[in-house]
Amino acid sequence: MTTSNPTSDRPVATSPGYAITVRVESPASAGSTRELAAAVGAAGADLTALDVVESTHSAMVVDISCNTADEAHAQRVAEQIGALEGVHVHKSSDRTFLMHLGGKLSVTPKVPLRNRDDLSRAYTPGVARVCLAIAQEPEAARRLTVKRNTVAVVTDGSAVLGLGNIGPAAALPVMEGKAALFKQFADVDAWPVCLDTQDTEEIIRIVKAIAPVYGGVNLEDIAAPRCFEIERRLREELDIPVFHDDQHGTAIVALAALINALKLTGRSIDQVRIVVSGVGAAGHAIITLLQAQGARHIIACARNGALHRGEQYGDAHRDWIARNTNAAGFSGTLKEAVRGADVFIGVSAPNLLDEDDIAAMNDGAIVFAMANPDPEIAPAAAARHAAVVATGRSDFPNQINNVLAFPGLFRGLLDAGARDITESMLVAAAQAIAGAVGDDELNASYIVPSVFNAEVASRVAAAVVVSAESGEQHASTS
Amino acid sequence: MTTSNPTSDRPVATSPGYAITVRVESPASAGSTRELAAAVGAAGADLTALDVVESTHSAMVVDISCNTADEAHAQRVAEQIGALEGVHVHKSSDRTFLMHLGGKLSVTPKVPLRNRDDLSRAYTPGVARVCLAIAQEPEAARRLTVKRNTVAVVTDGSAVLGLGNIGPAAALPVMEGKAALFKQFADVDAWPVCLDTQDTEEIIRIVKAIAPVYGGVNLEDIAAPRCFEIERRLREELDIPVFHDDQHGTAIVALAALINALKLTGRSIDQVRIVVSGVGAAGHAIITLLQAQGARHIIACARNGALHRGEQYGDAHRDWIARNTNAAGFSGTLKEAVRGADVFIGVSAPNLLDEDDIAAMNDGAIVFAMANPDPEIAPAAAARHAAVVATGRSDFPNQINNVLAFPGLFRGLLDAGARDITESMLVAAAQAIAGAVGDDELNASYIVPSVFNAEVASRVAAAVVVSAESGEQHASTS
Repeated sequence: MTTSNPTSDRPVATSPGYAITVRVESPASAGSTRELAAAVGAAGADLTALDVVESTHSAMVVDISCNTADEAHAQRVAEQIGALEGVHVHKSSDRTFLMHLGGKLSVTPKVPLRNRDDLSRAYTPGVARVCLAIAQEPEAARRLTVKRNTVAVVTDGSAVLGLGNIGPAAALPVMEGKAALFKQFADVDAWPVCLDTQDTEEIIRIVKAIAPVYGGVNLEDIAAPRCFEIERRLREELDIPVFHDDQHGTAIVALAALINALKLTGRSIDQVRIVVSGVGAAGHAIITLLQAQGARHIIACARNGALHRGEQYGDAHRDWIARNTNAAGFSGTLKEAVRGADVFIGVSAPNLLDEDDIAAMNDGAIVFAMANPDPEIAPAAAARHAAVVATGRSDFPNQINNVLAFPGLFRGLLDAGARDITESMLVAAAQAIAGAVGDDELNASYIVPSVFNAEVASRVAAAVVVSAESGEQHASTS
Repeated sequence: MTTSNPTSDRPVATSPGYAITVRVESPASAGSTRELAAAVGAAGADLTALDVVESTHSAMVVDISCNTADEAHAQRVAEQIGALEGVHVHKSSDRTFLMHLGGKLSVTPKVPLRNRDDLSRAYTPGVARVCLAIAQEPEAARRLTVKRNTVAVVTDGSAVLGLGNIGPAAALPVMEGKAALFKQFADVDAWPVCLDTQDTEEIIRIVKAIAPVYGGVNLEDIAAPRCFEIERRLREELDIPVFHDDQHGTAIVALAALINALKLTGRSIDQVRIVVSGVGAAGHAIITLLQAQGARHIIACARNGALHRGEQYGDAHRDWIARNTNAAGFSGTLKEAVRGADVFIGVSAPNLLDEDDIAAMNDGAIVFAMANPDPEIAPAAAARHAAVVATGRSDFPNQINNVLAFPGLFRGLLDAGARDITESMLVAAAQAIAGAVGDDELNASYIVPSVFNAEVASRVAAAVVVSAESGEQHASTS
């Protein structure tokens, strides 16, 4: 919600991510809660609750909960409340921090351990037979241990959210959140693995060494180009699926959104001209997946403009993009590339385009401006010229959010007992996400389902299982 | 329970660790369940349940649950049931394996993720602030992440139970069971880390690299002498407590049992003559801890007899034992060593002693025969001559079980925010376990509390916290 902030004369967007609870003592007069509420509003915050926790004839203690815009704003809100006559602020608590106290995950036994019988089955002496069964037939670990349902969420903390290289300890709250999402949306047991090393070979060795416990590996927030090598090698050397979410998760959801945006605007993916801005991990994966779905006209732009085969880029991934896109050898800037294009997909940096650039695209333009937190172009401005606009943000329609992909994808991989991830599984996942938006629901503000749509993960899982089984059949008949 | 087995004419000890459920179809006559029950008894198994799952006028389907002695016995039981007239066995299921299907642990979110508000606090964008707080002040990870309450249960699968070097995948069911015990007894979140390497330096590097997620490390079932070096180095190089349960967990509970056995028999630890059989990981830790509690007369025996300072043993741990025990330089066999001793503590091999050896000990002898699953001397034979007998087994009184120590110990370490483990914490834990047996309860069959005594872990935790705090005080005043 956007309100105006009288202390700075500019509107601020408040968010429950910056929710605070201010405990105050105030006079017990009839109007005092009304005054407190008014002070919250006047400070530009959104009141969510007023709880009287203690009351006497003369005074009362009130917990005021409200959403603010950022830390500085939260402080101003508390100060403005404290400036009311007779009001004394006891403390101001940050509800996001309160929620994080003690961490966000719990490891709980699935079996009872109430008495000796339980203990002798789940632990010694009974467990010894289960151990021996696995020693004799290693595949049995996929049935008889947590490997059946468990994914490692692995990071080195080198590219966390938009925060950059903040290290493994500071990355842990994100990985815990990711694990919570895995459980919530797909009943996958995921565990954070935050590695105190940023050495490619060491990360590969460690993930291989810890793999016996896991049925899959989700790489997360690892900087490019290291992430490419780590993913490639682990895929080769491990017998469980390995997935870099920042690449393929983003690509799956972007493709899902594009499938529906094209359906809405009545075009086919092999006909449209697509510009991808950003040639890092996500951009590379998006280009690959769009091509797997049939896209033929893609131009990829880096900071210096379009990648083309006339140049050498000094790293394997850019060179691959240059050789496999931009057949006409266009060599201009991003702004020049989008002129006359049908689709813009940005995974790059804020404010690279302006309203005129979108106006210069073809009619029925599709704009996915996914740079986070600030998109390549303000979505409201883009919407004045484009037919469909999507971003990575939750406060605009059409959020391209990986949560739509990774829980169901791994649910399917684990259910299928898959040993690796194929491109056809990624395409199947994208189609399943797109299919979760019914023909009667599809419109320019609803090209991807809500992240809280409980059906999405099971649709994705089912599609991945079908794809895994047809892949196996193919392998066994070829 | 011990019953006689008519097919082999020898008694067999049945266990719920070998519980089976046999599904049969049998005639629907009045006597048929009686006959089924009788067949179970005649086969030497212990019936635990008879469930009729389907019934018609002529036939019924019955699930027969019973405890058996081992896999071969379980098979014989099913065969003898199937030999009854008109009875057809559908299938025989192993209840220990059924319990293990899908693994024994679940990773669950502690915070709700029902709607956008929840998501924006537990995940993006709110989580970014928590990440930054930790990046700025790394200690905050101990409050704001799972590190607060989480222990890594680390093994290389090289010395699992009595099974030996079965590898990391086959060790996983034990580590899962351990993690379940951590939660059940002390609300500690423990996670299995089964490493696919047995290289000392690599194990050290990996545990250091994964440490950001954990508030403590429990090393488990790692073979000697590798375990010594791994523990020593990790203690030096990590800022979280590191504990090798096979050493110190066993030592704590053995000391607790000895404190109470000496109390019962009216002696003081500095006066008694103690023989320790076994100089591996557990023996070394027991000797160290007994000395910390005041023991002065210890002789340690290996396979070849008593260790003494007249000899070089070629490894640092044996040489240390030789230099720090056996002041008189005794050099005989184990059997010679126990003659006239007051206390025997065995962590070695089955059947090293016989009844005459125990008879040759001093009056009021204390015998802890902890080799697993078969003790150094049959406890019934030992009990004919000793005042107190304990084993590692659950089917005799006085089980020396690490479950009494590790959950409460780590609860205390986490609550105290401890960075390492001191000897005084181990002694405090042992005294707390001993203290859980009241003076009015103490007798020769009850020198340690039951593993299901819910008080033990909180007593141990409280003692460890006190010890940690006085250690800090000591450190800050010295």
